[in-house]
Amino acid sequence: MRYLKITLAYDGTEYAGWQVQPREHGPTVQQKVEEALARLTGEEIRVIAAGRTDAGVHARGQVISLATASRIPGERWPWALNSVLPPDIVALKAEEVGPDFHARYSARSKTYRYTIDNGAFPDVFLRRYAWHIRQPLDVDAMEEAAACLKGRHDFRAFAAAGRPVKNFQREIKDIRWTRREPFLYLEITADGFLYHMVRIIVGTLVEIGLGRREPRDMERILAGRRREEAGPTAPPQGLCLERVEY
Amino acid sequence: MRYLKITLAYDGTEYAGWQVQPREHGPTVQQKVEEALARLTGEEIRVIAAGRTDAGVHARGQVISLATASRIPGERWPWALNSVLPPDIVALKAEEVGPDFHARYSARSKTYRYTIDNGAFPDVFLRRYAWHIRQPLDVDAMEEAAACLKGRHDFRAFAAAGRPVKNFQREIKDIRWTRREPFLYLEITADGFLYHMVRIIVGTLVEIGLGRREPRDMERILAGRRREEAGPTAPPQGLCLERVEY
Repeated sequence: MRYLKITLAYDGTEYAGWQVQPREHGPTVQQKVEEALARLTGEEIRVIAAGRTDAGVHARGQVISLATASRIPGERWPWALNSVLPPDIVALKAEEVGPDFHARYSARSKTYRYTIDNGAFPDVFLRRYAWHIRQPLDVDAMEEAAACLKGRHDFRAFAAAGRPVKNFQREIKDIRWTRREPFLYLEITADGFLYHMVRIIVGTLVEIGLGRREPRDMERILAGRRREEAGPTAPPQGLCLERVEY
Repeated sequence: MRYLKITLAYDGTEYAGWQVQPREHGPTVQQKVEEALARLTGEEIRVIAAGRTDAGVHARGQVISLATASRIPGERWPWALNSVLPPDIVALKAEEVGPDFHARYSARSKTYRYTIDNGAFPDVFLRRYAWHIRQPLDVDAMEEAAACLKGRHDFRAFAAAGRPVKNFQREIKDIRWTRREPFLYLEITADGFLYHMVRIIVGTLVEIGLGRREPRDMERILAGRRREEAGPTAPPQGLCLERVEY
């Protein structure tokens, strides 16, 4: 067997998320990737992804692991895969790894980026990749509020129900806003993320940016560990899995 | 009557170009804009655009002119229009003008930008807005070749058949390549453009960038005034009408 680590980018707009769904919610990225692998190798290959992105969420650096009997050499995989993948999923890189490599469990950290379009009118070319908010945002307040999330905490307040989780402790290694008028980007690096965690953090920070809450509320929400105290879940299209570190 | 000049951005991917087609080739941007105007005002309004973009071509700064009996004040038009336009067409700006203003005939110059994605693999987020060419391009040669087009010339060699034109003289006021790895942008400002002119220029410059022709061939092609001597027409999705100067 050959064990592969493959880096993918995809536009999540047309997909019901990464993971193959129990019932039919539309095609998933995993399904398209596994179909492409089957066409290429004739094998039925199951792939494991570093992050199970939600419906409408994108990736620039998703990492998957898989095992195959195919003799295609490691570095040829992106070309081979791209010849059978749909145009909104692209393999960027492939390398052979040991049998112990697991795209999710071996990951040390993942970085997500959330894009807000804060222009008066939405940028038509980014409408599928950003959350358009036309009201002015107090970015200083959003920066102040974000800073208190850094470090190891119980992030239960920022976790949606719907996935079985016992341990809500995660470590945010880095969290920062970048401005490039009229866009705002939140980049978060953590050792792991709870279900909808980035989107609930963004939804809460935007409430602060709009002046509906104070920056100091963030610490209280974090400590309270109650989802109801945090803000709404930001829409999926602004979110992108940027990279995974091993 | 009120005379308006409105600036529009649109993602041309889903449209059969700007202009209402004699037969049914799919919806056009003009059709969608006129439908939106009808919903807003109850009037049947014909609009005139500065540039009749082709199917799949985009705009960041298309300008239209129109006359209306509506009492909506000039500066409120973008908000009003955006409430009835589809999400891939956005009104950015509106101002009242005199009855003599004509979006096309009053224009002094227009600027188009063509985007080439020269990465090893296509950027999934720009696949609808760029021409992906994975072979290395000699940008110095493309710059040298582009330079000779500047000025007033007969551009018949770079005009597709299909539109009745008597005068093939146009003045290219500025033409330049910009690089931002892995992207290349060609920006051309001219007093007017012939049918497919930018796309044929790009197609020819790419042949030079690929080493299939020499930079000095450009001057010969221009002087020859024969479409057959120029290169192929670059695909539409890389092209965008950036702005119109009056």
